[in-house]
Amino acid sequence: MTQENKIYGDLAERYIAAWNETNADRRRDLIAKTWTETATYVDPLMKGEGRQGIDAMVAAVQERFPGHRFALTGKVDGFGDHLRFSWALAADGQPALVKGTDFGHLIDGRLQSITGFIDQMPAPQQ
Amino acid sequence: MTQENKIYGDLAERYIAAWNETNADRRRDLIAKTWTETATYVDPLMKGEGRQGIDAMVAAVQERFPGHRFALTGKVDGFGDHLRFSWALAADGQPALVKGTDFGHLIDGRLQSITGFIDQMPAPQQ
Repeated sequence: MTQENKIYGDLAERYIAAWNETNADRRRDLIAKTWTETATYVDPLMKGEGRQGIDAMVAAVQERFPGHRFALTGKVDGFGDHLRFSWALAADGQPALVKGTDFGHLIDGRLQSITGFIDQMPAPQQ
Repeated sequence: MTQENKIYGDLAERYIAAWNETNADRRRDLIAKTWTETATYVDPLMKGEGRQGIDAMVAAVQERFPGHRFALTGKVDGFGDHLRFSWALAADGQPALVKGTDFGHLIDGRLQSITGFIDQMPAPQQ
């Protein structure tokens, strides 16, 4: 792994760690280390603006999916200020409930934006 | 296919058609229908700025890979002003030489930016 690849990998790991961190203080600290102050997040289901907005969005997802954790899947890929990686959300020991791929734009090594796409969603309840 | 999905699919198809169009007039026409005037393209190997810059970049790739064509692979995915799709570059009847995934940002239904990631590259020559 080159030094540059390590920077992208570390950033993606901090990003996932923030999604999994249910302690509010530690989560805000991770978000500050990962995102710029004016960062934005958007995917087909939700949006967040600024670190506070992103923190509130992450907290809401944790409340919606108690006992679930995010994990990186496959390899983290980046060049210049561009990043992509895939992830899965699963309950402990269960198959993934949701899978997605996130594209990021970096400024000074922090995330300025993430655009998330969904690769797998639960089938609608009958 | 919903109406919205058709818009994303049509845009991605015009984008690929422009990469394959070796007639300069028709290619510029496709690029104008697909990209905004101030559009930008970046991937790990090259950059293009504005319609002219993007046209020059596409022409250079066509010169580098004569007899090869781009094709969409998998399904085109989009929401709001966000688009992603995967593609393969192959010579007629041959396995793919290069594969990638492009992530786009739209303004008024045209591409304002494409960030391209490489999924498969030829192994370096020994």
